[in-house]
Amino acid sequence: MALRGPLFRLLRTQLHHTCQQSRAQSVAVLGAPFSRGQKRRGVEHGPKVIRDAGLIERLSSLDYSVHDFGDLNFHHLENDESYMDVKFPRSVGGATKMLSGAVSRAIGAGHTLVMLGGDHSLAIGSVSGHAQQCPDLCLIWVDAHADINTPMTSPSGNLHGQPVAFMLKELQDKMPDIPGFSWAKPFLSSTDLVYIGLRDVDPGEYHILKNLGIQYFTMRDIDRLGIQRVMEVTLDHLLARKQRPIHLSFDIDAFDPSLAPATGTPVNGGLTYREGIYVTEEIHNTGLLSAMDLVEVNPILGASREAVEATASLAVDVIASSLGQTREGAHASIDTIPSEKNDSEQLCL
Amino acid sequence: MALRGPLFRLLRTQLHHTCQQSRAQSVAVLGAPFSRGQKRRGVEHGPKVIRDAGLIERLSSLDYSVHDFGDLNFHHLENDESYMDVKFPRSVGGATKMLSGAVSRAIGAGHTLVMLGGDHSLAIGSVSGHAQQCPDLCLIWVDAHADINTPMTSPSGNLHGQPVAFMLKELQDKMPDIPGFSWAKPFLSSTDLVYIGLRDVDPGEYHILKNLGIQYFTMRDIDRLGIQRVMEVTLDHLLARKQRPIHLSFDIDAFDPSLAPATGTPVNGGLTYREGIYVTEEIHNTGLLSAMDLVEVNPILGASREAVEATASLAVDVIASSLGQTREGAHASIDTIPSEKNDSEQLCL
Amino acid sequence: MALRGPLFRLLRTQLHHTCQQSRAQSVAVLGAPFSRGQKRRGVEHGPKVIRDAGLIERLSSLDYSVHDFGDLNFHHLENDESYMDVKFPRSVGGATKMLSGAVSRAIGAGHTLVMLGGDHSLAIGSVSGHAQQCPDLCLIWVDAHADINTPMTSPSGNLHGQPVAFMLKELQDKMPDIPGFSWAKPFLSSTDLVYIGLRDVDPGEYHILKNLGIQYFTMRDIDRLGIQRVMEVTLDHLLARKQRPIHLSFDIDAFDPSLAPATGTPVNGGLTYREGIYVTEEIHNTGLLSAMDLVEVNPILGASREAVEATASLAVDVIASSLGQTREGAHASIDTIPSEKNDSEQLCL
Repeated sequence: MALRGPLFRLLRTQLHHTCQQSRAQSVAVLGAPFSRGQKRRGVEHGPKVIRDAGLIERLSSLDYSVHDFGDLNFHHLENDESYMDVKFPRSVGGATKMLSGAVSRAIGAGHTLVMLGGDHSLAIGSVSGHAQQCPDLCLIWVDAHADINTPMTSPSGNLHGQPVAFMLKELQDKMPDIPGFSWAKPFLSSTDLVYIGLRDVDPGEYHILKNLGIQYFTMRDIDRLGIQRVMEVTLDHLLARKQRPIHLSFDIDAFDPSLAPATGTPVNGGLTYREGIYVTEEIHNTGLLSAMDLVEVNPILGASREAVEATASLAVDVIASSLGQTREGAHASIDTIPSEKNDSEQLCL
Repeated sequence: MALRGPLFRLLRTQLHHTCQQSRAQSVAVLGAPFSRGQKRRGVEHGPKVIRDAGLIERLSSLDYSVHDFGDLNFHHLENDESYMDVKFPRSVGGATKMLSGAVSRAIGAGHTLVMLGGDHSLAIGSVSGHAQQCPDLCLIWVDAHADINTPMTSPSGNLHGQPVAFMLKELQDKMPDIPGFSWAKPFLSSTDLVYIGLRDVDPGEYHILKNLGIQYFTMRDIDRLGIQRVMEVTLDHLLARKQRPIHLSFDIDAFDPSLAPATGTPVNGGLTYREGIYVTEEIHNTGLLSAMDLVEVNPILGASREAVEATASLAVDVIASSLGQTREGAHASIDTIPSEKNDSEQLCL
Repeated sequence: MALRGPLFRLLRTQLHHTCQQSRAQSVAVLGAPFSRGQKRRGVEHGPKVIRDAGLIERLSSLDYSVHDFGDLNFHHLENDESYMDVKFPRSVGGATKMLSGAVSRAIGAGHTLVMLGGDHSLAIGSVSGHAQQCPDLCLIWVDAHADINTPMTSPSGNLHGQPVAFMLKELQDKMPDIPGFSWAKPFLSSTDLVYIGLRDVDPGEYHILKNLGIQYFTMRDIDRLGIQRVMEVTLDHLLARKQRPIHLSFDIDAFDPSLAPATGTPVNGGLTYREGIYVTEEIHNTGLLSAMDLVEVNPILGASREAVEATASLAVDVIASSLGQTREGAHASIDTIPSEKNDSEQLCL
């Protein structure tokens, strides 16, 4: 991004044009069966169980042209030793680089993108790929966790707890040069990000959130303000100055574990079903959603088949609601009440 | 209802007198073991499981004189072919006609009526019977579904998704002449009806709701406004101009499926226990409830005995709360704190 | 407490000094394995299962110095016949007397006290022991039940339904002389008490609440006002005139039975996890909590091991939140974001 002058302005114009064109009728679904951002096996099966729960049919029923691009085929690295305490750096770096390119192409082709994880480290790829096309995007991160540890503050070394740190310009000089991530440059300002649903924040993360002045809503904030007001403030914070593309990064563990049990790091006291759906309805209603992640569905961790199916079905509901499924029906196609008695005189009431 | 002049005014006065007389101390319970308004077996056992969950004892403990009139004995029709796409038209027409008469008699005799379904098509009978005695009644419909399809808009042809269409004067010219329903004349204006709890509305229904300007609250509306405000607006809408009798038609599927699993068409994201109870407390507090339906408890559809018992017990709580059971105790009968020390000088504090 | 004059003033000053000294860093945990305040076996194992759920480790992680004083060793009385209808009066009287002394000593030694029940009759001991050191304490009672029956109004005769009646000065002349309780003198005014979570109030209790003008919030009140406003009014009611020590008496049955199934008298429609945690966060944030009870966890009544563990884990969450565990992280100890690149120039952002 060292461009200056007329070429830069031209490119910038084109990118913005891509982002603002109507993509209402075309959705790209992209699976990312990847789990090396954390230690528990199973989250790589997330794309499969979400599709099995009927995602494609549901989106098609919303009158979208749905393009299922299948799953990315990530390379398995035999030797990927920890760097500092960071686990599997080259694997995560490679996967997110591949994902970034695929997301950029899909958005560039005019689709609204749905990325199915996989673990949340993948967001390094999906958000940066989105930002390549739409540099002025803003990010809504719905999650029990802030995922903003740096390699130095992370208690675990797992990269699924660190993706946001890779994105933020303000943290650039706090980040070491991690093998596998030479491609990744920070692209987001801390004012372009809002968190919703936090309830398990590490000490270093808390310090970063406070010092960067990031807007976040913990479950306590939701208890105090109500989800309606939380969304009002969120959208005002991100969109009041100008309308711009939204990236929604939704970790299924934002929901209460009673609703989404099949996930790796559940925390009590999460979003209700209705709060989660409300969040996505409000985002859809802006008309600005251009890409979203749905991550951390792990079918191996459900205690029963019912638990897995409930979690996957919830993921489908979140995606469908983000893309316009409504609770009062979205039914613009009818404009008269049919009457048997006199078909030639049907009138709109 | 072609009466005009003095006789009409006399009759109208009498009817109103019946509706406004105190029926606080007398409740009639009427079972309607009927399931032909939909396709799933089992909902005809609703009256039995609700009684088994202790309904009569509970109402008696509220100091009511409870008259259990048992179950209606519906005729089984061997030949009842679909008309257009409408399933079992003659069966539903006959059952609701019988129910209408029974409800009218019970209300005319001064009881507050509790109708136990059975499926929600029965409301055609219970509300019309109520309206025979109380022509100025208003209707509160608590349900995941709007049940306002006409035979022409219904996706399924099941009459339990259409009862409201049979009641509304504004839809009269949209309704075909369905076998079995020659007795049923529309009697309700669209301004006399409020919905609470909607979250699965068919395209035709949405169009009708919007075009008739019906007041309704989806789960999203409840998320936005809170149940307290929803009830305030509901009661203001129906009662601000004048006090009049309330018919409450409560479909157990208004509750979240986690609370009411034993029902035929569950939809995620429903009322909490506390919201449902709050709705009924507020209705009771008006002093105007004169009849209610509790429908769609289907014991065959519960995954376990516990699921069925939870659903039936919830139904009992809804009915008891509608009839005055309170969460802070309703205890007008004591007016001193008993003291052992000096019984002759007991004083009210 | 018949002291008058200079000695009284001196003692009073000392007591207040004890209450106001900083006890932030020292917590005393005291188990009270007692169940004679009610009829169901098992609640005497409450202290064990709450400790097994990790209480001591959790409090230690909050940077407290935790002193676990183990369990009190209550005497078993062979002959303890009912007095009037009151069950086990001498057992409860003896146990609460012993507990009162132990609590008074722990608070006098500068600890914040956590009492693990056992049944709620124990609060007669814990609150009175607290009041010996801090006579101006106020009491927040979080419970499905008011526990304010007198021996004359109690429907059951169980003392776990009566502890508040033993504390209130205003009820002194309504209380008979019960064997075992000669040591217990009322010490609390009805204005020093607030209830949260009530939903099953006996007739005599309702009368007492109303006539003494006690501030209480039923679940209906929480539905109307929201938990945020309930806590605002609660703390204003108790603390607006002056800052003073808080005793929190938390019955696990305040929570909905779906969250706390392993308890003796569950009532539907209780606090959500988030509401319960919000209550305790707000109390912690006053900086005035000096003692708390956590009672009525009964491991024998859980339908499964999971049910028992969920209930005990919830108890640990309530205690930890009361003592400062937060949902956004409580992390004052870090003041720079660590950076690998130039350790000598680390700056606070």
